[in-house]
Amino acid sequence: MTLITNNSTTEIINFGAEDESVQQVCVSLKATLLVIEYHRFPDGESYVRVIDEGKDLNNSRVIIVSNLHQPDDKMLQLYFLCETLREMGVTRIELLAPYLPYMRQDIRFKPGEGITSRYFATWVSQFVDRLVTVDPHLHRYKTLADIYSIETELIHASDSIAKWIENNVADAILIGPDSESEQWVKAVAEKANRPFIVLEKIRRGDRDVEVSVPDAVRYQHCTPVLIDDIISTGKTMLQTAVHLQNAGLKKPICIGVHAVCADSDYRQLMSGYVEKVVSCNTIPHESNGINIMPTIIDRL
Amino acid sequence: MTLITNNSTTEIINFGAEDESVQQVCVSLKATLLVIEYHRFPDGESYVRVIDEGKDLNNSRVIIVSNLHQPDDKMLQLYFLCETLREMGVTRIELLAPYLPYMRQDIRFKPGEGITSRYFATWVSQFVDRLVTVDPHLHRYKTLADIYSIETELIHASDSIAKWIENNVADAILIGPDSESEQWVKAVAEKANRPFIVLEKIRRGDRDVEVSVPDAVRYQHCTPVLIDDIISTGKTMLQTAVHLQNAGLKKPICIGVHAVCADSDYRQLMSGYVEKVVSCNTIPHESNGINIMPTIIDRL
Repeated sequence: MTLITNNSTTEIINFGAEDESVQQVCVSLKATLLVIEYHRFPDGESYVRVIDEGKDLNNSRVIIVSNLHQPDDKMLQLYFLCETLREMGVTRIELLAPYLPYMRQDIRFKPGEGITSRYFATWVSQFVDRLVTVDPHLHRYKTLADIYSIETELIHASDSIAKWIENNVADAILIGPDSESEQWVKAVAEKANRPFIVLEKIRRGDRDVEVSVPDAVRYQHCTPVLIDDIISTGKTMLQTAVHLQNAGLKKPICIGVHAVCADSDYRQLMSGYVEKVVSCNTIPHESNGINIMPTIIDRL
Repeated sequence: MTLITNNSTTEIINFGAEDESVQQVCVSLKATLLVIEYHRFPDGESYVRVIDEGKDLNNSRVIIVSNLHQPDDKMLQLYFLCETLREMGVTRIELLAPYLPYMRQDIRFKPGEGITSRYFATWVSQFVDRLVTVDPHLHRYKTLADIYSIETELIHASDSIAKWIENNVADAILIGPDSESEQWVKAVAEKANRPFIVLEKIRRGDRDVEVSVPDAVRYQHCTPVLIDDIISTGKTMLQTAVHLQNAGLKKPICIGVHAVCADSDYRQLMSGYVEKVVSCNTIPHESNGINIMPTIIDRL
């Protein structure tokens, strides 16, 4: 029997996240950083060691600040880390994953497909007590509780994005690439106190779809700001930028919450039709320009 | 409610194993190969699809023939695959992993270390019903049941190795590099009907250890055959080969059950002191020369 003491400290762990982000969490929570030794042997197996330097982790709370982009070869280490912490008496493990992977396969598009979002969520729910994340890709799921059985905390990037626009783009006209994005673009626009338009698809036939930019003439002097949750291949943004150019608007600034894009796709997006690309620092990326950590820290 | 029918077919899946090995299993069990589509998206997430082509997998048994060497970035796909199969009604999933990874960290050598063998076993036991493997690295664990809660089947490579020696090395003298290997080398020697010797460490002081090769003179005309379970860095084998040379013996043939070694270590081992390296085909490797599949198939 372990004697239940009341030390309940909070420890922070950096699991592949940026040092600066982790430092912000430590300072704000007045918590210390728990040093972890990660190692991969030549045979591809992982080694994990919690270097507690004599700290008593019994009954403690641990926040793991993680970068889970490119998740497949990271997850086993994360699982091992959590199991090791449990054995050291940690009672609460909180996973701060600013970008939550495995949210896109939320249905069987073809027979026999694995619904990976659900399997991933089931597994993570087994070794983590709380998940904190920024704007997960909720499409067919209404909330994370549809697949995660643990406590989840969902943080919106809209405040941070609105603030960035206010500070950096005086003449912004916010652009939603399609009707699905309307609600979200509207919210950011209201917070930034700027106008917004949503592109309209006019279907003339099966293969003949015209995209119109309402009120284009009115906003020709403004800087268009395109917003989306994930910049993946960048194709949606690129296409939208072409429509804007055709309508006589300026080159847009593209804002994505999560920059999951490969470097080659990023370069492609940056060449020509786009003024610049800015993302939140949920995934370390060259385009990071909006610091989401203060908003996250408020909710820890 | 699913109607329980009595179709109970056996399906085979190739999860990163060699086509030839998988083919041997299919032919022997008169079972068909279930085609799986694996895909990794540019963002590093995996996609898995079971292409059943109208087969009824309800109540079926599935054997996954897998190569789990370099395990970290494979395991999530394997887990997804098993979950997908469950949803298709598969009632029994057997994992044929000729090489079982994560057996070496079986104790906490330093405080705070994760005992990865146990965590790995716990997880795998959640989505697999039966594990079939060849000579796992059992050191401090007596059996796989110490950490795996599912049915496990342990296959010894000694028969296949003995047969290979009989057919390929007429004048073999089997060599155990140290006293720990004695039992195993003895078993192979008896099956191959050849003599064996075990190297002896004579400690003259704290740092002064002499290794002697008993009966060296008697076996100078023989071909030494070194045997070990895992060829990792190859250092043990290389050192033993040097001792044999010093004792006036010929260059040895090195046999390992599992060739987990990196190419560079393999080259190093092959340059100079060693005649050749032969391994069982539990891990696809240039040195594979002993076909373990017939022995495995007998136990499926």
